[in-house]
Amino acid sequence: MPKLSRYLPVLDWGARYSRADLSGDLIAAIIVTIMLIPQSLAYALLAGLPPEAGIYASIVPIVLYALFGTSRALAVGPVAVVSLMTAAAVGEVAQTGTAGYAVAALTLAGLSGGMLLALGVFRLGFLANFLSHPVIAGFITASGILIAVSQLRYILGIDGGGHALPEMLTSLLRNIADLNIPTLIVGVGATAFLFWVRKGLMPLLQKTGLPAGAVNVLSKAGPVLAIAVTTAATAILDLGDNGVAIVGVVPQGLPPLTLPSLAPELLGTLLLPALLISVIGFVESISVAQTLAAKKRQRIDPDQELIGLGAANIGAALSGGFPVTGGFSRSVVNYDAGAKTPAAGAYTAVGLLIASLFLTPLIYFLPKATLAATIIVAVLSLVDLSIIKRTWTYSKADFAAVSITIALTLGLGVEIGVSAGVAVSVLIHLYRSSRPHMAVVGRVPGTEHFRNVNRHKVETRDDIISLRVDESLYFANARFLEDCIYDMVARQPAVRHVILMCSAVNEIDMSALESLEAINMRLRDQNVSFHLSEVKGPVMDRLKRSHFLAVLTGQVFLSHHLAVSALSASLVDHPPDGFADLHFVARDQSCDLP
Amino acid sequence: MPKLSRYLPVLDWGARYSRADLSGDLIAAIIVTIMLIPQSLAYALLAGLPPEAGIYASIVPIVLYALFGTSRALAVGPVAVVSLMTAAAVGEVAQTGTAGYAVAALTLAGLSGGMLLALGVFRLGFLANFLSHPVIAGFITASGILIAVSQLRYILGIDGGGHALPEMLTSLLRNIADLNIPTLIVGVGATAFLFWVRKGLMPLLQKTGLPAGAVNVLSKAGPVLAIAVTTAATAILDLGDNGVAIVGVVPQGLPPLTLPSLAPELLGTLLLPALLISVIGFVESISVAQTLAAKKRQRIDPDQELIGLGAANIGAALSGGFPVTGGFSRSVVNYDAGAKTPAAGAYTAVGLLIASLFLTPLIYFLPKATLAATIIVAVLSLVDLSIIKRTWTYSKADFAAVSITIALTLGLGVEIGVSAGVAVSVLIHLYRSSRPHMAVVGRVPGTEHFRNVNRHKVETRDDIISLRVDESLYFANARFLEDCIYDMVARQPAVRHVILMCSAVNEIDMSALESLEAINMRLRDQNVSFHLSEVKGPVMDRLKRSHFLAVLTGQVFLSHHLAVSALSASLVDHPPDGFADLHFVARDQSCDLP
Repeated sequence: MPKLSRYLPVLDWGARYSRADLSGDLIAAIIVTIMLIPQSLAYALLAGLPPEAGIYASIVPIVLYALFGTSRALAVGPVAVVSLMTAAAVGEVAQTGTAGYAVAALTLAGLSGGMLLALGVFRLGFLANFLSHPVIAGFITASGILIAVSQLRYILGIDGGGHALPEMLTSLLRNIADLNIPTLIVGVGATAFLFWVRKGLMPLLQKTGLPAGAVNVLSKAGPVLAIAVTTAATAILDLGDNGVAIVGVVPQGLPPLTLPSLAPELLGTLLLPALLISVIGFVESISVAQTLAAKKRQRIDPDQELIGLGAANIGAALSGGFPVTGGFSRSVVNYDAGAKTPAAGAYTAVGLLIASLFLTPLIYFLPKATLAATIIVAVLSLVDLSIIKRTWTYSKADFAAVSITIALTLGLGVEIGVSAGVAVSVLIHLYRSSRPHMAVVGRVPGTEHFRNVNRHKVETRDDIISLRVDESLYFANARFLEDCIYDMVARQPAVRHVILMCSAVNEIDMSALESLEAINMRLRDQNVSFHLSEVKGPVMDRLKRSHFLAVLTGQVFLSHHLAVSALSASLVDHPPDGFADLHFVARDQSCDLP
Repeated sequence: MPKLSRYLPVLDWGARYSRADLSGDLIAAIIVTIMLIPQSLAYALLAGLPPEAGIYASIVPIVLYALFGTSRALAVGPVAVVSLMTAAAVGEVAQTGTAGYAVAALTLAGLSGGMLLALGVFRLGFLANFLSHPVIAGFITASGILIAVSQLRYILGIDGGGHALPEMLTSLLRNIADLNIPTLIVGVGATAFLFWVRKGLMPLLQKTGLPAGAVNVLSKAGPVLAIAVTTAATAILDLGDNGVAIVGVVPQGLPPLTLPSLAPELLGTLLLPALLISVIGFVESISVAQTLAAKKRQRIDPDQELIGLGAANIGAALSGGFPVTGGFSRSVVNYDAGAKTPAAGAYTAVGLLIASLFLTPLIYFLPKATLAATIIVAVLSLVDLSIIKRTWTYSKADFAAVSITIALTLGLGVEIGVSAGVAVSVLIHLYRSSRPHMAVVGRVPGTEHFRNVNRHKVETRDDIISLRVDESLYFANARFLEDCIYDMVARQPAVRHVILMCSAVNEIDMSALESLEAINMRLRDQNVSFHLSEVKGPVMDRLKRSHFLAVLTGQVFLSHHLAVSALSASLVDHPPDGFADLHFVARDQSCDLP
């Protein structure tokens, strides 16, 4: 049954599961579990939720993704940017720490899961393409800055809040007097240690000649070490009583069965954030999955990925979690550690289950400042302001999109930032394609070729306008074409024929068809014939289904050369009044050819 | 000072105003005035306003348009569709007949005027292009049906309401028992007479050999005759006392000076309707203006038209009016009657001013049923359901857009209808351009030409993939290109080179550049080189500003033939392991060439 295995890829790889697969998957699972425990706790903190929510969000979703997803190495769970977006969305409807907040978070996961599933079932994955790369890069960079700043309050041991940079900074400044020195020491110490692991330890390990995968995996154990040391120090030195905020009691047990809220008002408020989280999460996840799959010439199916992520998020909603997606660093670790199949994810889930059953008492004394340090160090690697410079050099339109995205994300928050980025990209694209490149063409002397009069020394005639349009004709540029032609005809009173060269026109939609009809009629009123040349086969097939060809005052020519030859001949036979110069004239102005 | 006359076109034509212009303009003004009086009253009724508002909306706006507009013949004032949209928008915030309703209507005109001005000043007229022709046609048709149905209550003499078909019909059915027979006689009589004028009188006049313009003008006098007869009959037969609704007292006098409301809540509610009215009004007006200008090889400037219409609407807001735009039938009459310059509009304004000062007592007994009849007959000419059939034959995408527009306009009202139409058009366009046409190409035997393997009998090699993409590369299709290439490489393990033929690529944006880099890297991991061929000059200039060319594993070839020749030669020198057949192979499958 090929159909079932398409929707349930586990049937495919599960049937061929080998002992080698098992050992690769088991080793990868152990490493990822060790890495995921601190990450899950930290991202729960970032999302404004109790630490156990992070562990819960990593168990059921991983298993569901293993059943439905197509990537062999993707590791699903809470990630930084989505956790920040969760905090922003849920912070609008509930107060951190309340039961309503947790319910809203899992409702958001449920909504997002439903949307991802729907997008997958209706094969609408292409919608994610409207997030241009620069917009994504700008958004991730700005989010990284927001996340790092949002964690400063834990490092400083003060209160703080806000979902955009101005609010965050003012709230930090307002409370800076409450600075707690022991917290600051723990926080700065952990941050410095983690930076050293990343910048200093990795090169050191690389020099030892260990394989790159192993180096990567070992350096990911840094957060576990930081947590162990600071937790021990806090317990021994009684730092909790000295004002260092600690994680405290984390319930031991299986993930709870939870139900999202169905309150219409809550659902309405969370609808747009859920959509944005779904799209951002999907884009992040699929980029990782494709990168890893390509390394082994494997393929992933974007629409099936939507279903896998949708199932994972619904799982998160039903087991006390919050929105999840495929994370970059954990997937790379999973891959490097030798994960062969999605079963590695299932084994990771077992590892986390054991942690949530037995290990939570160990983190009672874990300082929140340590978690904040792991977040800060992780997200600062996301910050890459070079995109601003690169787009500036390469394309001003992309520069505009990325600048607006970064400025609005930092200044007004993640939702407005990413929405504005998408809107600006689409508008810029529409604006551009609404003014397609067009060229008046003339004959290259002695040949049958017709080229742009502004770039080549070519021959033209005052009584024939040859216009080439370098884009498909559709509603956004139909009127522009009309304007161009009316304009040219108004400025060139001697003209008797207009030939539109359609060699680059892949499509003519209904609006463009009507514009062509309007051009034909208006030129007829002015006693000018309208012709087409080099119309592509599929476009011609469609034109034949309309009545345009019946009303066309001129002809459709196979080649532009044929058109100009035939029309020139007819003009020689019937010279118009007051029009003598019938010879080809070379246009000299603005020739940019050597 | 060319700059000033660009923004104030009156300086241009005013300086050259001749006696011949004057007589043409005066005659046109008299005819248009006679036509505008009933139209203004009727559209005020349609907009839910007292009749004098229609006259006021025709005076100051006409003068302001004459000063700022570029069309020689456009007649500005209340029009059917915009009046309907006004009724829908204002009906949401106030009750018909209240002072609040009138204030909301002129606030709407002020908002719309401000938006049009802003669009003109910032030269954003291109935004109107995103209304595709089928969406406009569907919207106008559906609006025509809505308008006709909305007037049935005046013909039947019953109460009614609603802004979409289901509500309108249920409210008519609920009140049908109150049917007033005298009203019905007047209404049906006037309707029948006006239909006869249009369908019977015009052909009759045409047979007399009068010029087409005169026939058109004479047949437009039908409504005036209908009004005169039914008003006289109502006065003489005391129909007002028999339940026939009459216009009643209309204040005599100059248009009042009015001020739009600045209440933020009202402005917020009216913002979207004002935008839609602006865009629809602009599209309607510019279509008429361009049609008439083209007949005389004149030009109109869309951005200056926005300024002209913006000024007209602000004028309407300050003189007791409601949103206005250039009307189709009145502009054609103006043109046919010989209007030479926008001064004809100013003379029309004087005519209407005289009417509002002296003629309003004459319409005391005018039955509202007669006005409804003039509206019904006028708008039914807008209804053209053939667009459904034409788009079905020509393009399923356009059919989808037009069907959704008509269905939602009828079912849910004008605002949702036209917004959905725009959204659907843009989405369909984006979807299409996100999956551009691509073709694997092979060499036409014995030539240097490369053609689609599915359409031509061509030669290909298993170790080289030649791919032509027929669209500019940008964010929406960048990932699709990646998927395509990974897919092909995964299915063709013998491949050593991939050549992307860029002859139809007019642009590569930052997202596409990054996709090309990703393709390059992933193919490198698979030991496959990536090449480009036939890159256009401007695209190449931009690529040179990036570091893509530095990391490209392959080369950029001037022609595709050069690329295939060079790479074939290199493969002969170094045949890959387990790969013997290095000769061109003809692909026979799915050749659709004779």
